[in-house]
Amino acid sequence: MVTVKPRLLKGMQDGWPELASARRRMIAQIESVCQQFGFLPFDSPAMEALDALLGPEPTPEQLMGVFHFVNHDDEAVGLRYDLTVPLARIVSLYRQDLPQPFRRYQLGSVFRFDKPEPGRFREFLQFDVDTVGTASMAADAEIIAVIDRVLRALSVANYKIRLSNRKLLTGLGTFAGASVEQARSIYRVVDKLEKYGRERVRQELGPGLIDASGDRIAGLGLSERQIARIEEFLDLPNEGDSLESLQAARALLKGNALAEEGLKEVEEILQHLAAFGVPRASYMLDLHLARGIAYYTGPVFEVTLADLPSYGSVFGGGRYDGLVERFMGEGQGVPAVGASVGVDRLLAALAELGQAGSGRAGAQVLVTVMDAGRMVEYIALARELREAGIAAEVYLGSGGLSKQVKYADRLGIPLAVIIGEDELKRGEATVKDMELGRRIAAEAGSREEWKEQKQQFTVPRGELLRAIRERLGMTGG
Amino acid sequence: MVTVKPRLLKGMQDGWPELASARRRMIAQIESVCQQFGFLPFDSPAMEALDALLGPEPTPEQLMGVFHFVNHDDEAVGLRYDLTVPLARIVSLYRQDLPQPFRRYQLGSVFRFDKPEPGRFREFLQFDVDTVGTASMAADAEIIAVIDRVLRALSVANYKIRLSNRKLLTGLGTFAGASVEQARSIYRVVDKLEKYGRERVRQELGPGLIDASGDRIAGLGLSERQIARIEEFLDLPNEGDSLESLQAARALLKGNALAEEGLKEVEEILQHLAAFGVPRASYMLDLHLARGIAYYTGPVFEVTLADLPSYGSVFGGGRYDGLVERFMGEGQGVPAVGASVGVDRLLAALAELGQAGSGRAGAQVLVTVMDAGRMVEYIALARELREAGIAAEVYLGSGGLSKQVKYADRLGIPLAVIIGEDELKRGEATVKDMELGRRIAAEAGSREEWKEQKQQFTVPRGELLRAIRERLGMTGG
Repeated sequence: MVTVKPRLLKGMQDGWPELASARRRMIAQIESVCQQFGFLPFDSPAMEALDALLGPEPTPEQLMGVFHFVNHDDEAVGLRYDLTVPLARIVSLYRQDLPQPFRRYQLGSVFRFDKPEPGRFREFLQFDVDTVGTASMAADAEIIAVIDRVLRALSVANYKIRLSNRKLLTGLGTFAGASVEQARSIYRVVDKLEKYGRERVRQELGPGLIDASGDRIAGLGLSERQIARIEEFLDLPNEGDSLESLQAARALLKGNALAEEGLKEVEEILQHLAAFGVPRASYMLDLHLARGIAYYTGPVFEVTLADLPSYGSVFGGGRYDGLVERFMGEGQGVPAVGASVGVDRLLAALAELGQAGSGRAGAQVLVTVMDAGRMVEYIALARELREAGIAAEVYLGSGGLSKQVKYADRLGIPLAVIIGEDELKRGEATVKDMELGRRIAAEAGSREEWKEQKQQFTVPRGELLRAIRERLGMTGG
Repeated sequence: MVTVKPRLLKGMQDGWPELASARRRMIAQIESVCQQFGFLPFDSPAMEALDALLGPEPTPEQLMGVFHFVNHDDEAVGLRYDLTVPLARIVSLYRQDLPQPFRRYQLGSVFRFDKPEPGRFREFLQFDVDTVGTASMAADAEIIAVIDRVLRALSVANYKIRLSNRKLLTGLGTFAGASVEQARSIYRVVDKLEKYGRERVRQELGPGLIDASGDRIAGLGLSERQIARIEEFLDLPNEGDSLESLQAARALLKGNALAEEGLKEVEEILQHLAAFGVPRASYMLDLHLARGIAYYTGPVFEVTLADLPSYGSVFGGGRYDGLVERFMGEGQGVPAVGASVGVDRLLAALAELGQAGSGRAGAQVLVTVMDAGRMVEYIALARELREAGIAAEVYLGSGGLSKQVKYADRLGIPLAVIIGEDELKRGEATVKDMELGRRIAAEAGSREEWKEQKQQFTVPRGELLRAIRERLGMTGG
């Protein structure tokens, strides 16, 4: 018999119980917030037609980034790399049948053929929330309010929602005398400000440069005077009071219709955010925010964690009014605004900050098996515990008490119940507090209050349920 | 601009809010039961190495059944077609690190290149629960108890868990004088009993037949006398009292070690089921149960719905002790038992029976926008409702009241709040009971009690929250 080597594919991740449980807790919080705001769940398949995913003429780079193949029906198909393209397909396909506006959220795996790195996988769980079919800035503010609510529900500390508008940087370009084409690329250059600094931005706005690896990076070809105008904008007060930044930008860009429109939209969003109850300290206007993705057309926003600045953004989104043009034709866009978060990535960030939350999956009590002939009684005890709302399992393996205790320890089960011959004779049961044992072992008995609690105690069988509930900190009947 | 035709791939399914919500409710119930029994969640990627999925030398038929391709790393990969093969891969890969026994559940999409039929899709959500690493029949009984608990949690009526043991039919074969090879195939023939009847089974046990389409169906080649022996078994009392069937089978098969072992295992499971608290009416021994899948080695079980017999089984499983042999070599099996259910298939069955359960996703209240200049106030009202635990949304589209009311109707939102110029002047708010309106419309006002309730009423603004809570049937503060 030829055997197969068991292996996890490169870039893939198995969801061990700790991660799987943390995911489920995060998903439950996210869904509860979406539900409160009246967003509806909408699922879609993992597979889509390849041209739906990448357009009719994908570049080799685009093709390299997705998992794609020809199926047995001779269709070119691919695995979705985000949840936005499937949304565009759905909106285009069902536009007569969808509510108007269409407010949906989705949680699903997406697939990217990226170079695997620590914390970056080729399949990962993503959450998207979008409102399609309205140009109202209240929709943009609402998406931001949902993000804020999700982060608060997850007890994330010190997050900051940064907000700007793509129209600002584009309008700034024409304001500085750049061509429309050049102006459209300014956001891409400004996006490098934080990572590479002002000098690099100046070079890329101008003639370009040769980078450290010897590669030639083309510049936008702006003149010194044009660049100076853009730098005036970059020198405006930022990272402080949002209204002050807003006024300064308005004063500088006066007369440029696009930039003025962008600023007006930002102002509207700021007003709405207060009405939505987003705490004033949670959000700010960031004039330097560019969001380096081509499809944004208006407001853009992202979330950074003050305590983990190296992580970049953990939540991002914006308005993308060209959403369905791939399917419906140029100029046939539908206004849309949305946000995405990589659930696993956010979990990893929170774990690094010690804010991942607690709560374990699995049993609270292990019923040990001291006499295999009495299995039926052990099973009935576990059932009794479950009926009292206590997650319980009977040890189903072979081996003696020490192996069973080790099993409970391995799984982090807090309590083990032992009913052996002695206990049976006396109508008693022994409870071993595994959790307390672990804490005492971890801190070498330094805490007096733990010493006072017994790691193991015996109670009459009739009091077992009460004793377990008490030890688990469960209150009430 | 070349546009792409938006389309859903053949055999795929979009999860509209109603389905997506029903799925989430079912998943929540399933997970809660697994949690109560101490099963741990374990996720795995949708993609696996192709040889892990199908073995080192897959047949063309096997390859036709799965989505597979060579990825950019030149690896032959495929999308999982069930959750059992990934489990085998996980157990083989991590056997040193997994708890012993390893009790896990998984919910995930699986992919099959089947011919699409109504209710049969190429991607569907599956739930599996398994215990790996123990030969104890208590584990088999526990899996059945989990199934029973899940079905009860889902309020499924009139389900029956049918139970047997693969060893019975195999042992019966050698008992009747068949070769070991012939005996191993008897379950495949008996599996056709319900669909094709006794005469067909007799032919397939014997010389074979030419079926209606002219295809030659090979038989096992048993003699008349051997077939008569097998028919004696098929004539035993079945579908009645399980203990009577058990005793009759024991009397008939006396002396055949394998069959006796199978019967002993069944008896043990029956004893354990009672201890687990599975209601006596929920399960039965079914001597004809074959479960036509090769890998079962011991107990097999499935669930049928008495009110939907044509649907076949909605939940199935059994013991498959050869689980990891593909990876670890013949005879290196690890004992395992588990069950699977197609979540979407079970949902479809329950929907057909009118037992799908209720509960809609989305807002309970739509705050209509009568004056776009007062958007901030409408947003603040929705926020106030959410803070009182009421899911609420502000209408974000354009258009007047009738369009907004239509939107609420389309989404099944129960209540709409209207604050127009008149209400503002008088410090009031109008509530429109959309749900009541729909019920009156549906039954043409035939019910007196509905007439007594007003479809639309106006209250002072300060009493709005109370009035809404009352209309929604929410109790308490």
